[in-house]
Amino acid sequence: MYFFVNDYNSICYPEILNALKEKIDEANIGYGFDDHCENARDLIRKALGDSSVDIHFIPGGTSANIVGLSLDMRQQDSILALETGHIKGHEAGSIEATGLKVELCHSDSGKISRHILEKEIGKFDTEFSTRPKKVYISNTTELGEVYTKAEIMDIYDFCKANDMYLFIDGARIAAALVSEKCDYSLKDLTSMCDIFYLGGTKAGFPFGEALVIVNDKLKKDALKLIKQKGAMLAKGFISGIMWERVFCEDDFYLRGSRKAYAMARNLAKGIEAKGYELTYPFESNQIFVNLSDEDLERWQKIAQFEVMEKLEGTNIVRLVTTFRTSESDVRGFLEEI
Amino acid sequence: MYFFVNDYNSICYPEILNALKEKIDEANIGYGFDDHCENARDLIRKALGDSSVDIHFIPGGTSANIVGLSLDMRQQDSILALETGHIKGHEAGSIEATGLKVELCHSDSGKISRHILEKEIGKFDTEFSTRPKKVYISNTTELGEVYTKAEIMDIYDFCKANDMYLFIDGARIAAALVSEKCDYSLKDLTSMCDIFYLGGTKAGFPFGEALVIVNDKLKKDALKLIKQKGAMLAKGFISGIMWERVFCEDDFYLRGSRKAYAMARNLAKGIEAKGYELTYPFESNQIFVNLSDEDLERWQKIAQFEVMEKLEGTNIVRLVTTFRTSESDVRGFLEEI
Amino acid sequence: MYFFVNDYNSICYPEILNALKEKIDEANIGYGFDDHCENARDLIRKALGDSSVDIHFIPGGTSANIVGLSLDMRQQDSILALETGHIKGHEAGSIEATGLKVELCHSDSGKISRHILEKEIGKFDTEFSTRPKKVYISNTTELGEVYTKAEIMDIYDFCKANDMYLFIDGARIAAALVSEKCDYSLKDLTSMCDIFYLGGTKAGFPFGEALVIVNDKLKKDALKLIKQKGAMLAKGFISGIMWERVFCEDDFYLRGSRKAYAMARNLAKGIEAKGYELTYPFESNQIFVNLSDEDLERWQKIAQFEVMEKLEGTNIVRLVTTFRTSESDVRGFLEEI
Amino acid sequence: MYFFVNDYNSICYPEILNALKEKIDEANIGYGFDDHCENARDLIRKALGDSSVDIHFIPGGTSANIVGLSLDMRQQDSILALETGHIKGHEAGSIEATGLKVELCHSDSGKISRHILEKEIGKFDTEFSTRPKKVYISNTTELGEVYTKAEIMDIYDFCKANDMYLFIDGARIAAALVSEKCDYSLKDLTSMCDIFYLGGTKAGFPFGEALVIVNDKLKKDALKLIKQKGAMLAKGFISGIMWERVFCEDDFYLRGSRKAYAMARNLAKGIEAKGYELTYPFESNQIFVNLSDEDLERWQKIAQFEVMEKLEGTNIVRLVTTFRTSESDVRGFLEEI
Repeated sequence: MYFFVNDYNSICYPEILNALKEKIDEANIGYGFDDHCENARDLIRKALGDSSVDIHFIPGGTSANIVGLSLDMRQQDSILALETGHIKGHEAGSIEATGLKVELCHSDSGKISRHILEKEIGKFDTEFSTRPKKVYISNTTELGEVYTKAEIMDIYDFCKANDMYLFIDGARIAAALVSEKCDYSLKDLTSMCDIFYLGGTKAGFPFGEALVIVNDKLKKDALKLIKQKGAMLAKGFISGIMWERVFCEDDFYLRGSRKAYAMARNLAKGIEAKGYELTYPFESNQIFVNLSDEDLERWQKIAQFEVMEKLEGTNIVRLVTTFRTSESDVRGFLEEI
Repeated sequence: MYFFVNDYNSICYPEILNALKEKIDEANIGYGFDDHCENARDLIRKALGDSSVDIHFIPGGTSANIVGLSLDMRQQDSILALETGHIKGHEAGSIEATGLKVELCHSDSGKISRHILEKEIGKFDTEFSTRPKKVYISNTTELGEVYTKAEIMDIYDFCKANDMYLFIDGARIAAALVSEKCDYSLKDLTSMCDIFYLGGTKAGFPFGEALVIVNDKLKKDALKLIKQKGAMLAKGFISGIMWERVFCEDDFYLRGSRKAYAMARNLAKGIEAKGYELTYPFESNQIFVNLSDEDLERWQKIAQFEVMEKLEGTNIVRLVTTFRTSESDVRGFLEEI
Repeated sequence: MYFFVNDYNSICYPEILNALKEKIDEANIGYGFDDHCENARDLIRKALGDSSVDIHFIPGGTSANIVGLSLDMRQQDSILALETGHIKGHEAGSIEATGLKVELCHSDSGKISRHILEKEIGKFDTEFSTRPKKVYISNTTELGEVYTKAEIMDIYDFCKANDMYLFIDGARIAAALVSEKCDYSLKDLTSMCDIFYLGGTKAGFPFGEALVIVNDKLKKDALKLIKQKGAMLAKGFISGIMWERVFCEDDFYLRGSRKAYAMARNLAKGIEAKGYELTYPFESNQIFVNLSDEDLERWQKIAQFEVMEKLEGTNIVRLVTTFRTSESDVRGFLEEI
Repeated sequence: MYFFVNDYNSICYPEILNALKEKIDEANIGYGFDDHCENARDLIRKALGDSSVDIHFIPGGTSANIVGLSLDMRQQDSILALETGHIKGHEAGSIEATGLKVELCHSDSGKISRHILEKEIGKFDTEFSTRPKKVYISNTTELGEVYTKAEIMDIYDFCKANDMYLFIDGARIAAALVSEKCDYSLKDLTSMCDIFYLGGTKAGFPFGEALVIVNDKLKKDALKLIKQKGAMLAKGFISGIMWERVFCEDDFYLRGSRKAYAMARNLAKGIEAKGYELTYPFESNQIFVNLSDEDLERWQKIAQFEVMEKLEGTNIVRLVTTFRTSESDVRGFLEEI
């Protein structure tokens, strides 16, 4: 049985566990004020090529979205996101639970665009509506797409022109950065938005995301908000040790995602070669395939994966590769289907 | 330099890291639906002697308080807690941020009592007030005290008589259970309240608490609330593996706390023998000492610890022991002061 | 200049001001506990033919929605509403500000239906989503439609079968009840939903809605919630006097709406007779008309009204009649266009 | 039976009803954008001697507190208020329901002071606490006291020095302004705080408060917040007509409060002359008296009033005068006790 369910199904890189083991006799102060956290932050700043950003380690993606999206928001402010956005349908009302409305836009793809924002923004010039103050995008998107630099800069420019912040959900930013569609690197990210996070959970960490705050206005009192949202672990030094280990080595952060991408490309090509239709063009480690009822039934005997939508006659399924997906997994699966 | 700052300064029991290492090649499904989580829950249910409870693994204490206290609350409901309660002054408004008011009661100790509740409850019989729906206590308390069974049952009876829930913050429940003052065991806990948690972070885990829901009314849709509050880690199986490892072995959960308690007792006795005054009677691994300005200055050269209150002439400091505190730490510190 | 902007542009029925004047020397206790409120509630219960309901006077429609929709909601609960729902786009995030998510459904008309609900409800059987606990509809709808009894009963049955509440925004319930499309009366309302309100503001009152709670589970501690949301006026007896005045006289509550409906019918027929196209079939005192750019410009010189949507070439405008719209207003306007 | 229960027991000044009657045939646009509102705002600005302030008409005191206190607040921000503050115990958790924590300070009187704030503020220099961003005071206080100008300016200076806003709950500001203890006038108010409101409900209006925003940072998007909180009445022009009527005449706003104050002074003096003890020195239209159980029982046969606290042997009762309290009421009551 092949396993293509998601990109968070194994514990972590062995190097991370080893680093923890080495430090098992240490006593560290709590809440992220220890030396490992400081060092990890410096290493990440170096990798980003920006010494001015604030970095906070957050236990998971939903927390990172909650914290990042509620920073510097007044009660009448809102967040613009796509109908397909992760915060819309997959986080059980986490943003609304903080009192903020998520204002939804429609897109024909999984991407937001400057054009969409321009059409939407006019609707809010009335006292009967909220004030959109942040734009939420995820990269890669929920549909596995990778934003180009121009696409993001267009959105970011729009935000700046409209007194809004751009927040990038980077749970899968590593998957985006290693794609052939990607025309920017880690070093570009801080010039492309106000706040984002480097995903850990989906990039080989046992848990945790590194929230990177670029805009000074969002930095103020961020620790208080993180504590309030339950996103400040007492043993913050554990995050410090993990991120320190990954970022002390050049390109380690992206290494596993490169492997996952290569496997996904083989998988996508092989699937197409077998005559199946991809739902969206291949861009990253998430592959969506249209399957007939019969094909679906057959595939489900061979592998585990998610069925995203069940329509009459056609189904959309998602296969995801990870840093642990092997060439033989891909080959074996392709042979059996 | 001796380290008595807190009980969450080292990574974890080595056995936990080893257990993770053993499973590093596994692929598990996410969000706590895996076999390790199932098994861990069963083992904990067995240790608690109660097969009917729901158990959820939560990343940290603040999250566990947020989730536990917001379950089955309407918007006009509130939580009764002490002025010294952790949720009052140490969690940056986490409960209020969910919309719920924390109604404060005064106690001369760090404990709430049936008597206090009886005095308070009358104030809420008006449309100008909230409806107290939960009582929050922590055990051990913020002052290191251990509730007796009778004290908790009195509070719990009051709650039941008044259509309220009793929530026990168990971040330090292990420290309470190993105290000589404690007249109950793990097997009693589910008959003493509606919901509580077994602290992991302060009992040798790298992170995580096990939220135990006893009352059926609180169980419904709990997963949705946990997701909403950002307290559901994608790699839930990691919590499963950790809690499985600790609870597969008899008494492992309390072993470290027993050690910490023994060290704390030696420490407290030694401090008193040297002529210092304990702020509160010794009951658990948190020891509070009254120190003059001079003594404080001297102690700070020997050890790290927290200064809780700085008054003119007198200071209250807190020393905390952990499963890693050694006899030689205690002896050495006592010799130097 | 004719005035068809909305149905809340004049102070109130003169009878209401006179009733207030008569009582100007009285001293009454506050917050709705006075005799006028008690009497008004009894009169309304009589008009509804249901002595078991709780009735609360609320200052306005947004407040009534906030209160009615947040009663007996847990934090993971949500509200199902249409994309065209008033609480979606016209109340500045009022529901989300209480922490509750509004889950949106699409409809080809302005009405929700059992069929729509059946399609939607399956999406919520996962821990990643909220729990829909209330259905929100407005009657008349935002598009001026009137629900039939069968339509509402279908929705209500669905709610009961799915442990959900049905809430009817009745800001324009009077307009619905006087329509020829309406096959139910005031006496039927309490058997058709769990909670609704009788609109006052849009039915000749200076302000205020009468929130009618049918389901016992929603009644508990409602006053506390009303106070919390700022919806309990200190001089509650003023609402008492007003509602007492209107409901002490048979059919007074609907009299003005009958007039408005008759005028709207004439207006709609006249507009169609002149060759214009109604956007939706005429059903109540809100009339929507498709206008070319030229016609729009011309009409704007003759009357005041709202332009709902500006599309290239076509515009949708809304004309609204009230109890003060006269036959000569309608005739004059029809002549001039 | 004399009536000293509160200052909101009669409908309103007859002049206000008459003004409404005069305008009964008008058609006005909604939501406070009409000419009456514009004119009323100008008249109030003139009375305040400050043309730069924003003014919004809000239905009641709780709404005015909710809106005023939640303007320009981030989620980690909090409000400093006294334990005796109205928002603490009398508004059913209204502020916390918006997600904001009210941080409580103790005072020996009903007044906050710069000294108290200086002691408190240090507690918030940690990531475990909220960030106090507003100070809430009420004037007159809950105990009927009147702040002096120096007292308020001290607090305001502290706020400015600490990046905080000063909010004055002015539900009884008219009662304060007419007191002999008061050393400032309407013309001073906008230089004494960032935001306050002129109470209407307790100063002869049927409902409504005029929220005055002085600080530009609080003005932005205020209408959106007011709409969100349900505090924007559709028929806003009714508030416009009422406030226009009161402020078009010099000193009309304070006239009734002057009468109430004079009556209260007679009452207080008479009560003391009869040998009873005032709980607090007389300063405004709220008089607190210590009564034995017997005296209480006797008084309750003569008049209606509130018993604030019932202690063994002693009781604190409150008598309140209004613009409708007559000399014969006072004389008659004093004779009978």
